[in-house]
Amino acid sequence: MRAVILLSGGLDSTTTAAIAKNEGFDSLYALTVDYGQRHQFELAAAMRVGKAWGVVRHEFLKVDLSQFGGSALTDANIAVPHGRSAEAMGQDIPVTYVPARNTVMLSLALAYAETVGAADIFLGVNHVDYSGYPDCRPAFLDAFERLANLATRAGVEGVLKMKIHAPLLEMSKAEIVRTGMKLGVDYSLTHTCYDPTPDGKSCGVCDACQLRREGFREAGWEDPIAYASR
Amino acid sequence: MRAVILLSGGLDSTTTAAIAKNEGFDSLYALTVDYGQRHQFELAAAMRVGKAWGVVRHEFLKVDLSQFGGSALTDANIAVPHGRSAEAMGQDIPVTYVPARNTVMLSLALAYAETVGAADIFLGVNHVDYSGYPDCRPAFLDAFERLANLATRAGVEGVLKMKIHAPLLEMSKAEIVRTGMKLGVDYSLTHTCYDPTPDGKSCGVCDACQLRREGFREAGWEDPIAYASR
Repeated sequence: MRAVILLSGGLDSTTTAAIAKNEGFDSLYALTVDYGQRHQFELAAAMRVGKAWGVVRHEFLKVDLSQFGGSALTDANIAVPHGRSAEAMGQDIPVTYVPARNTVMLSLALAYAETVGAADIFLGVNHVDYSGYPDCRPAFLDAFERLANLATRAGVEGVLKMKIHAPLLEMSKAEIVRTGMKLGVDYSLTHTCYDPTPDGKSCGVCDACQLRREGFREAGWEDPIAYASR
Repeated sequence: MRAVILLSGGLDSTTTAAIAKNEGFDSLYALTVDYGQRHQFELAAAMRVGKAWGVVRHEFLKVDLSQFGGSALTDANIAVPHGRSAEAMGQDIPVTYVPARNTVMLSLALAYAETVGAADIFLGVNHVDYSGYPDCRPAFLDAFERLANLATRAGVEGVLKMKIHAPLLEMSKAEIVRTGMKLGVDYSLTHTCYDPTPDGKSCGVCDACQLRREGFREAGWEDPIAYASR
């Protein structure tokens, strides 16, 4: 069975790839969108992960959302926050939110899916840790699935019933790590940090690093990647 | 009032810009998406039109959908059809259909709109002449508008109520031309042809040229652009 998977090379999308394989999607078409991130370590991780999971095709597509500005992840003038509490992260939409990112990513995945004849799209969004992001909520994903079936030749002609899979949606970071470990994910290949050192070491203190480290701790596994700070 | 407009530089999007201005959207943020078209004449036309209508900002964003393949407009291995009858054009989804194109374009427009604080997005899709395209239908546009309000920080926080405007949706090509002429559109700036000659002259016989020429004829105006064949 064919599926398109949005693969950033982070912990979440890598676990999602393992879940898709485990559910019988043996032909994975990976899509890594380079939306103008500050660093290229994510792309290198995506490539490693794609190879490790034997994707049948891997497209790297550049869409420079940093042209629009408006996010700490794509705009060098906005600082990435460090050392925030878990409550602070959960409460409002963070500055690391990239405007309409998941809408853009899913629409590109949809174009790819239609071209390769896949009805299934996997993405590693998560509602628990990223409750502040509007485009990580179930209502958003349902609305996109509805749109997908109206937007495509395959959907309209009834050839394919498009389905959006977000298997991590209701999992905590610890549950994600446990699931991945059970499925044989090698997390040393992944990259999570928003703000790595110039040589690619994870900072350990940005929101993303904190959530990851806490997830490993709670799951009772050791995180195999190196951090610049403990 | 601010609005984002998807501006290809064709007859439809140019007329749409004129309508948006006429409706009081004096601050137009133009977005021209280069999705891997076969030629650059469209981009040059978009730039001319943006200048003519005094857009406050014009972003040209490259998103190479031709990486995925699957359309005569982006894939050099698929021929652009010539000299088809109007019935043939209306009946099935043409090979010039680009998979999920309008979904991709609207999601990029949404990212732009959220960044600049615009609640309104204009696009020149048309239901009459392009009935074969799934993503030119009213149901698709309604579904996207619903998605837009779930996808964005502005929508979720209730700051902006996102609205998709497709003022040409139910117009015939002749009505579009008449509307544009009334609003002072200079159609000599626009480019429509799918398959121009190397020096940028319109072929006159592809689906897009045929619809355009027929529209001008029916509207009773002379088309100011040059054609390679009569």
